Amino acid sequence: MSTQISRHPVPNLDDLSQDIKDKILQVQEKAGFVPNVFITLAHRPDEFRAFFAYHDALMLREASGLTKAEREMIVVATSGVNHCLYCVVAHGAILRIYAKNPQIADQVAVDHRKADITPRQKAMLDFAVKLARTPEALTEPDYQSLRDHGFSEEDIWDVGGITAFFALSNRMAHLIAMRPNDEFYLLGRVPPAKR
Amino acid sequence: MSTQISRHPVPNLDDLSQDIKDKILQVQEKAGFVPNVFITLAHRPDEFRAFFAYHDALMLREASGLTKAEREMIVVATSGVNHCLYCVVAHGAILRIYAKNPQIADQVAVDHRKADITPRQKAMLDFAVKLARTPEALTEPDYQSLRDHGFSEEDIWDVGGITAFFALSNRMAHLIAMRPNDEFYLLGRVPPAKR
Amino acid sequence: MSTQISRHPVPNLDDLSQDIKDKILQVQEKAGFVPNVFITLAHRPDEFRAFFAYHDALMLREASGLTKAEREMIVVATSGVNHCLYCVVAHGAILRIYAKNPQIADQVAVDHRKADITPRQKAMLDFAVKLARTPEALTEPDYQSLRDHGFSEEDIWDVGGITAFFALSNRMAHLIAMRPNDEFYLLGRVPPAKR
Amino acid sequence: MSTQISRHPVPNLDDLSQDIKDKILQVQEKAGFVPNVFITLAHRPDEFRAFFAYHDALMLREASGLTKAEREMIVVATSGVNHCLYCVVAHGAILRIYAKNPQIADQVAVDHRKADITPRQKAMLDFAVKLARTPEALTEPDYQSLRDHGFSEEDIWDVGGITAFFALSNRMAHLIAMRPNDEFYLLGRVPPAKR
Amino acid sequence: MSTQISRHPVPNLDDLSQDIKDKILQVQEKAGFVPNVFITLAHRPDEFRAFFAYHDALMLREASGLTKAEREMIVVATSGVNHCLYCVVAHGAILRIYAKNPQIADQVAVDHRKADITPRQKAMLDFAVKLARTPEALTEPDYQSLRDHGFSEEDIWDVGGITAFFALSNRMAHLIAMRPNDEFYLLGRVPPAKR
Amino acid sequence: MSTQISRHPVPNLDDLSQDIKDKILQVQEKAGFVPNVFITLAHRPDEFRAFFAYHDALMLREASGLTKAEREMIVVATSGVNHCLYCVVAHGAILRIYAKNPQIADQVAVDHRKADITPRQKAMLDFAVKLARTPEALTEPDYQSLRDHGFSEEDIWDVGGITAFFALSNRMAHLIAMRPNDEFYLLGRVPPAKR
Repeated sequence: MSTQISRHPVPNLDDLSQDIKDKILQVQEKAGFVPNVFITLAHRPDEFRAFFAYHDALMLREASGLTKAEREMIVVATSGVNHCLYCVVAHGAILRIYAKNPQIADQVAVDHRKADITPRQKAMLDFAVKLARTPEALTEPDYQSLRDHGFSEEDIWDVGGITAFFALSNRMAHLIAMRPNDEFYLLGRVPPAKR
Repeated sequence: MSTQISRHPVPNLDDLSQDIKDKILQVQEKAGFVPNVFITLAHRPDEFRAFFAYHDALMLREASGLTKAEREMIVVATSGVNHCLYCVVAHGAILRIYAKNPQIADQVAVDHRKADITPRQKAMLDFAVKLARTPEALTEPDYQSLRDHGFSEEDIWDVGGITAFFALSNRMAHLIAMRPNDEFYLLGRVPPAKR
Repeated sequence: MSTQISRHPVPNLDDLSQDIKDKILQVQEKAGFVPNVFITLAHRPDEFRAFFAYHDALMLREASGLTKAEREMIVVATSGVNHCLYCVVAHGAILRIYAKNPQIADQVAVDHRKADITPRQKAMLDFAVKLARTPEALTEPDYQSLRDHGFSEEDIWDVGGITAFFALSNRMAHLIAMRPNDEFYLLGRVPPAKR
Repeated sequence: MSTQISRHPVPNLDDLSQDIKDKILQVQEKAGFVPNVFITLAHRPDEFRAFFAYHDALMLREASGLTKAEREMIVVATSGVNHCLYCVVAHGAILRIYAKNPQIADQVAVDHRKADITPRQKAMLDFAVKLARTPEALTEPDYQSLRDHGFSEEDIWDVGGITAFFALSNRMAHLIAMRPNDEFYLLGRVPPAKR
Repeated sequence: MSTQISRHPVPNLDDLSQDIKDKILQVQEKAGFVPNVFITLAHRPDEFRAFFAYHDALMLREASGLTKAEREMIVVATSGVNHCLYCVVAHGAILRIYAKNPQIADQVAVDHRKADITPRQKAMLDFAVKLARTPEALTEPDYQSLRDHGFSEEDIWDVGGITAFFALSNRMAHLIAMRPNDEFYLLGRVPPAKR
Repeated sequence: MSTQISRHPVPNLDDLSQDIKDKILQVQEKAGFVPNVFITLAHRPDEFRAFFAYHDALMLREASGLTKAEREMIVVATSGVNHCLYCVVAHGAILRIYAKNPQIADQVAVDHRKADITPRQKAMLDFAVKLARTPEALTEPDYQSLRDHGFSEEDIWDVGGITAFFALSNRMAHLIAMRPNDEFYLLGRVPPAKR
């Protein structure tokens, strides 16, 4: 079984600039391992910095009307329709943890319409999946559906912005055949004590 | 969270004919629980009998040149492109067990091209996925690719037959919104001792 | 012109088990010839038995709220969008006979929206065609449309079940390049006396 | 059953200009009835004249390297993928007559890849069907395939020109819901003596 | 850079019949140059005559309820979704001139939903684009939308007829790789005085 | 005609942070106007900073094996298939300027296969367009085609990275209905002296 995590060269941690090294060590401390997206994208330092700055601006945004679990749902649903293995597996893990629900990621990745989520969340994912695959088809009723479910204009930006960012992310993962870390597959599926 | 496992009425075990009851008790004994596909499809006894007879003819076929894990790969890959939650979750579990690989089902369901499987198995899934979504597009080079990877004519029938049977199965699951049992989500992901 | 009726070996009637031979002789007596689906699928006896048991459970179901002609319409419309020559030609013949209408099969196979059928039947075929090609896209309004046209929940199961079974059937026919019998092309087009 | 042959007004023969009346009487004399395309399109005389002039330039072209049956195959195959009922039924009849083959039209309309035609004719229909549905996808290998099967540059123009003309024709038939004449359904299926 | 304007032979003006030569000289006098569609299609004189007769019947029709700019919008929008370079560039120029709007053609070709046009014109282009790409999908609500925006039945014929004609035209341009004249690119973008 | 440039609030330059204001004034000085992407995205300062950092990392990368014109070709071709008006119009202008070719942007946006570009550039755009619309379909032969045309592994990252970034960018433009500045439509079409 291949242990290659990217089609492109993967840098040594020691060869990286201090700011990138710090970012990586920080996530390692928090997660217990270095997700491959960090080490594979570090091959291009400037793109790395912009990628994670963009990611954090959307996914860590304090003012957002979306919960962190809802934001991860968007990632998992749109990565599902884009058949992006890295993002489904890695963000599926994060979604399970945020939602404290070991089944939700598999449901959302395969068919969000049958997932154990609220009608409001289904409307959100309908919008996101449409923007993800056929952005030109988004019309006024799609926006109205979000408003009818209580989404504000800023919330709509968040839904669309996260979808747009992972349109980029999914394509980078496909481009370099980014491999998910083994750790992600099981995260959030069993209580920590059991693992 | 809804506990409804079908849009249609779900029969009581006691109301079922003896042969169906026996089939269900037998799987319960083996699996430790009754997969919802048994109890939901039992709503129509004659279709139930034919469904499982067909399933067993293909999936338990002794003479097949495909391993049981390979047969489940076909199920998981085609159910993935058909966005069938029940089949991805339930057969994903079976695939993990047969392949003794806790990651393979997620890989095959999301993007078989990047899964940790052999080139022969990738060719098999290319053929299956094409037959699953656009059966009319199958042409001679698709068959030749299977032969080039060592598949016999009988193996090709197996690949196509399993794909065809789960085209039916996926549509029944979508039709009645069949819900996967909770048990499937974790099966084969952790050693039995750890659960 | 090829007289090959399958890519796979076609068994001799004499080599078949008695129950399969009986089934085939019975249809021959009724139809005047042996439809190729019987002889080609007999290559795999267990699959043959399950296939026809499933077929009969749906297509001969006494309690169904769908007429036999309506059930054949579903077959012809979904086989049309799946470009399945065997099923369009063979079931087109059966539909002409049941509906006593020499034109209906060609209409339904090419464009059910312009066929000489009732609005209720058009709604039924809209549902079937969607389930046939993009099963994941079926949502609540699709079910509601059937209910609005007077379909019961059991009728909906019939519509979906027949569509699902012919999703299998169409793929088997594509897989083995099943050739329709010459007899089907003209059946039901002209009064018996004229032929 | 509706006897309406167009969504738009259908002119009286007596109200038409002499040249159009003549054209219609001429086809009536030859065919024994007036195909609905003549009477429905006569609603717009100038478009009528251009339509049939274009049709005749391609379909009656003496110098063409395609037989008349081959030209009708292109019509039937592309009308099939465009789900155009009028053209499949009407030109299916003409194809049966030209090819002296009662089955060919149904085969070509449903799945030209499995029709009883030559490899050269299959290559011709592959090209035509691609131009019909996704004209932008036609690339050099598509042209080369035609040349490899012996088509000259003028033949390629004929294949493409007929496909292009029936792209127009199919859309006019869809637009006005043009109904095929009853007569077409049976033409060419049985020897004249038997009808 | 290639100056080839067609994959097929391009005739010399002097070798053409007088009526075709006259038609070409007439457009040259009006436009200041000979659009390549005239000279490339003249390779087949009878098709040429029918093509331009059809074009003029629709695009110059006095009685039409559509303005000439609206007719060109249909051409540009449908040629856009068909990725037809010749028609987008040539008819884009004509649209700019008729609409006296230097931006409208680029807007309509890329995404008519975001163009500076009226809701009525957007409804017209929604209908046209659907007929252009998936003619079989046109159903009653599509017609009703046009009526709701004030289109008469004759107007609907015009919308559909122009779409149908350019379905042909786009395919001929793709078939022969028709090259737009350099002159079209700038026409209508700058006031004549400035050029 | 609407002068609204975004569905979302557009900030006043004076209310923006100094670094964003500086970035905007800098582009205004260079271009002579403020492209709407700057002012509309400034509504979310952190995303703004990441967006332009990412953009500049790819589009201004000194070490790239792609010329600046080639990078803009990727933007225009992928934005074309995504029907993104802002990006086609704005980056079309930049492409015309970099390539010193007033026609190239219209060609690449409508149909890159018929554009006046090199076979190497066509291969590059084939790869980019596939990644843009169906990222999961990218397989080894797609990479090999780029290598066969002389692209290095770093060049492949650039092609894919730019495609990925504009997958994000196109979706943001669709989401907020970003309007292109009037200035872009004519830029690079006529020599400066003539405007």
